[in-house]
Amino acid sequence: MTQNIYDEPEFFAGYSQLERSERGLDGAPEWPAIRDLIPDLSGKVVVDLGCGFGWFARWAREAGAARVLALDVSENMIARARQDTHDPGIDYRIADLNRLSLPDDEFDLAYSSLAFHYIEDFDHLVENIRRGLRPNGQLVFSIEHPIYMAPEAPGWIDLNSRKTWPVNQYLVEGQRVMNWLADGVIKYHRTIGTTLNSLIRRGFAIDHVLEWRPVETQIRDKPALTDEMERPMILVVKALRLVR
Amino acid sequence: MTQNIYDEPEFFAGYSQLERSERGLDGAPEWPAIRDLIPDLSGKVVVDLGCGFGWFARWAREAGAARVLALDVSENMIARARQDTHDPGIDYRIADLNRLSLPDDEFDLAYSSLAFHYIEDFDHLVENIRRGLRPNGQLVFSIEHPIYMAPEAPGWIDLNSRKTWPVNQYLVEGQRVMNWLADGVIKYHRTIGTTLNSLIRRGFAIDHVLEWRPVETQIRDKPALTDEMERPMILVVKALRLVR
Repeated sequence: MTQNIYDEPEFFAGYSQLERSERGLDGAPEWPAIRDLIPDLSGKVVVDLGCGFGWFARWAREAGAARVLALDVSENMIARARQDTHDPGIDYRIADLNRLSLPDDEFDLAYSSLAFHYIEDFDHLVENIRRGLRPNGQLVFSIEHPIYMAPEAPGWIDLNSRKTWPVNQYLVEGQRVMNWLADGVIKYHRTIGTTLNSLIRRGFAIDHVLEWRPVETQIRDKPALTDEMERPMILVVKALRLVR
Repeated sequence: MTQNIYDEPEFFAGYSQLERSERGLDGAPEWPAIRDLIPDLSGKVVVDLGCGFGWFARWAREAGAARVLALDVSENMIARARQDTHDPGIDYRIADLNRLSLPDDEFDLAYSSLAFHYIEDFDHLVENIRRGLRPNGQLVFSIEHPIYMAPEAPGWIDLNSRKTWPVNQYLVEGQRVMNWLADGVIKYHRTIGTTLNSLIRRGFAIDHVLEWRPVETQIRDKPALTDEMERPMILVVKALRLVR
């Protein structure tokens, strides 16, 4: 049974107040680095896996995408996305990424922000995405970095007056239950190797691996981001569907 | 100026007594997993970058390699490797990986065990290896895992009675000075992303990324290896030189 934490009132209320929910893509410090990995979208067909309030879908259309299919498991999010959008080129639908079924050879770009770490069977998801992409289609996604997600107690500790991330059980993959916005949020920890090898085995070429870090201007504007240099919070992968 | 710590008497004496130095490949717990990534070597030409006492070079010949060029910066190691080997198919040479110059299109496999993290300019090294490999030639190498190498104080701490690795300055790449076998050993920390992107940019396809972990039989034989599940110590990458 898939957990749909997003539609629990406490989680949804908290999520709605995140800077990235209120301000959209510009509220996410990793967005400029991800944007640099997105190909020219003019005339392209895009699928957004875990679209939330639809910020990326609308950006993709402004960037020239012909059509965007925007999927999310949360009824609340899809309702809000539809309400915020007046664009027949975006098709918002409720869909569970655990049971994803995309049309074959349809998309030029599959995009996903911070959703795949909620998915237990990543291999199955990757196979679905591969089939949905056209040959040479691209996949760009972010997840919580496995260093961030691995620990039994994921929170800063102080070591010799330095913020330090207490890594343990990194090589023990599987479920992590977190209290974030609500209690009992289930995520799935996979190592970087496992994530990349799943893609490679299923016919993707790895094009770029980004362990996101703030740039100088971001740290100047928001000094608290310095802490992000101590351990990576977000992993971004760009991969290409090989022709075969 | 390149540091050649291996020929400092204190380091060499300590290194010579490591299990992997005395027993060879079978003294390295990661070896079985690496061996599985090595292609069939029958009739193949191999270069070993950082060959140490020559254990891999001799194994490669037993596995059918036609010739092995085995390079190391350490005069002591090359002297000992030559002394231990009676095989005209292995050519041991003193060479600094920082100033590597391989013949073009010569090798089917480039192999390296735990040497590249001593190299400051990884891009330059990768470019040299690429040129030395034949098209579709393979590169298999291990390095200290960046999680292992990143911290200011890389050593276990106890957190709620669990061995924990205190990760900090992970996204601050560059020199790390360690006291291991001798004082002041210089290593270079790079993130996984940086390492993989260097390879991709220079014409390699990533084939496999292995964050080494002990298997059950190893833990049964040597229970202390359980700790290795808490954080990865060794990263292994297999990459293919693309034809272009």
